[in-house]
Amino acid sequence: MADEHTTAGSYVTPGSEFTRDMRYIPTRITADGRDGYPVEAGRYRLVVARACPWANRSIIVRRLLGLEDAISLGVCGPTHDARSWTFDLDPGGVDPVLGIERIQDAYLARFPDYDRGITVPAIVDVPTGQVVTNDFAQMTLDLSTEWTAFHRDGAPDLYPQARRDEIDEVMLGVFRDVNNGVYRCGFAGSQEAYERAYDRLFARLDRLSERLATQRYLVGDTITEADVRLFTTLARFDAVYHGHFKCNRSRLTEMPVLWAYARDLFQTPGFGDTTDFQHIKEHYYVVHEDVNPSRIVPKGPDLRGWLTPHGREQLGGRPFGDGTPPGPVRPGEAVPAAHTAAAMAG
Amino acid sequence: MADEHTTAGSYVTPGSEFTRDMRYIPTRITADGRDGYPVEAGRYRLVVARACPWANRSIIVRRLLGLEDAISLGVCGPTHDARSWTFDLDPGGVDPVLGIERIQDAYLARFPDYDRGITVPAIVDVPTGQVVTNDFAQMTLDLSTEWTAFHRDGAPDLYPQARRDEIDEVMLGVFRDVNNGVYRCGFAGSQEAYERAYDRLFARLDRLSERLATQRYLVGDTITEADVRLFTTLARFDAVYHGHFKCNRSRLTEMPVLWAYARDLFQTPGFGDTTDFQHIKEHYYVVHEDVNPSRIVPKGPDLRGWLTPHGREQLGGRPFGDGTPPGPVRPGEAVPAAHTAAAMAG
Repeated sequence: MADEHTTAGSYVTPGSEFTRDMRYIPTRITADGRDGYPVEAGRYRLVVARACPWANRSIIVRRLLGLEDAISLGVCGPTHDARSWTFDLDPGGVDPVLGIERIQDAYLARFPDYDRGITVPAIVDVPTGQVVTNDFAQMTLDLSTEWTAFHRDGAPDLYPQARRDEIDEVMLGVFRDVNNGVYRCGFAGSQEAYERAYDRLFARLDRLSERLATQRYLVGDTITEADVRLFTTLARFDAVYHGHFKCNRSRLTEMPVLWAYARDLFQTPGFGDTTDFQHIKEHYYVVHEDVNPSRIVPKGPDLRGWLTPHGREQLGGRPFGDGTPPGPVRPGEAVPAAHTAAAMAG
Repeated sequence: MADEHTTAGSYVTPGSEFTRDMRYIPTRITADGRDGYPVEAGRYRLVVARACPWANRSIIVRRLLGLEDAISLGVCGPTHDARSWTFDLDPGGVDPVLGIERIQDAYLARFPDYDRGITVPAIVDVPTGQVVTNDFAQMTLDLSTEWTAFHRDGAPDLYPQARRDEIDEVMLGVFRDVNNGVYRCGFAGSQEAYERAYDRLFARLDRLSERLATQRYLVGDTITEADVRLFTTLARFDAVYHGHFKCNRSRLTEMPVLWAYARDLFQTPGFGDTTDFQHIKEHYYVVHEDVNPSRIVPKGPDLRGWLTPHGREQLGGRPFGDGTPPGPVRPGEAVPAAHTAAAMAG
């Protein structure tokens, strides 16, 4: 995602709260194709940046559900300029499927006058080269509920019908106070706005800690969409939010329940193996020029603790419910070894 | 100290290492008065800012030695503008003894064309209103060795003749890699300069941890000037250097030996009772505008851990040697309760 930027490198509006522009492209890819975009294997490309927590969600869900063959993956580099994310990791800086240098091109192909944030994750219709949607919240739910025909054998139900009210309620608080809350800390334009966001963030994390002290996952006894959403913020907490966004009451490593919960997920196939710490650190510290004008990327912290035992098996739970874990990461989709927790000693 | 600034709010020189301007006023106040300034009770005023680690040294040493009656204390506020430190904490914004609003005035009274950093700590000759010296490194050594006639009964020997070579050697490494090293991290103008400073900082901290694992203090079995100098950086480590200066391999609380050592000193009269965490946080985050353009001061971290048991008594040692601890802080010189570790929950 990058809709927080208005002009290049400018994320903080002095005197103001940070307000995320939530006007995403509402088109949906559905089983019945009612918006003109039916689910169809090989037709769409999911464009992400591994740095971005909102995009990371979609990478995790796609992998957990085994949608790799149905929906291909385009990966932008960790940083971007005023015109947003680019395919600078690809040979020649061009996405090999879409043939474009910037995800912006897919937006403009559909909406020539598009004037909102050029964000990831975005799903592009490969035949036309046009963006279909960048509505990150709906996108992963649709992968779970509309793409069922293409799920792998043993795919988990991340959004079970019987628990949706509870999942939605948990996710609402997680989004407002945690996922977006860290941005409200980091991009606050006044001391008051910052302190409000900080208090809400840690109050919510304390409540989540209580909830997770006696149950392995947020809702029920299996991994759901709610866990995916909380995870992507926790994965970035000590690496960037603690220092860069001033979310520094305590580090994740100092919140024992959440830290064990986060490691449990991290060590579950689909989570840690889609987390690129190097991209995460580079993205935040380089792109947010008005928060970190020097653009220097901290060497720390030591992230190897992500691989230590978490002990959460004691709480029981069935990570994938009646399903099974996903298999190995697909060739070409692995996070580089140097960007993994094992390599990040600080 | 504030000699790191060249123009208002500008501390980082892109592409460069941070280099501290070490040209201080070399005049010394001595027992024999050879520079024209003999030690004399009531004649001089020590001007400090509690935020500043270099000034904090002088506050600690003055108190440990019991020089409060001999040398009065002027305290500047935590922040300053391009013309440097001001007496904004005093009624009317005027130092009650010197009758000036800015420490700059004392510099210009002696050197009308003074063009270097206007820094604290500074010692001012009260009768003339002229600055005598701002050479922070020599200043505390002179309090120990030249002001002996005015030391309290039971004052410790912080710079014992027999151990000076060892103390000097330890202090050299501590200054270069730790005291000044954190600034070299925070004000680095390039990724390379930052990483060099970071590596040296943590390599040195690791070596100091080894040294302190089996001995209570840095040199010998009593508190010396070397401990005072290491302490003032450690006291600021988690509160500011970890995030603001990107010294984030680990927090002080994650380096068990150093953390216990720092708490031991903190809980010793003269150390923690001269540490103003609120001023420390405000100073760094507000003054270094090019590191933190929003000037927002983080609420965290929770600093109450400074008051927890440290267990270092087991290592033996005689904190004050043949001397005694200093008595209570003088009326009017106490750190406000709201600025102490007990009050800083984050």
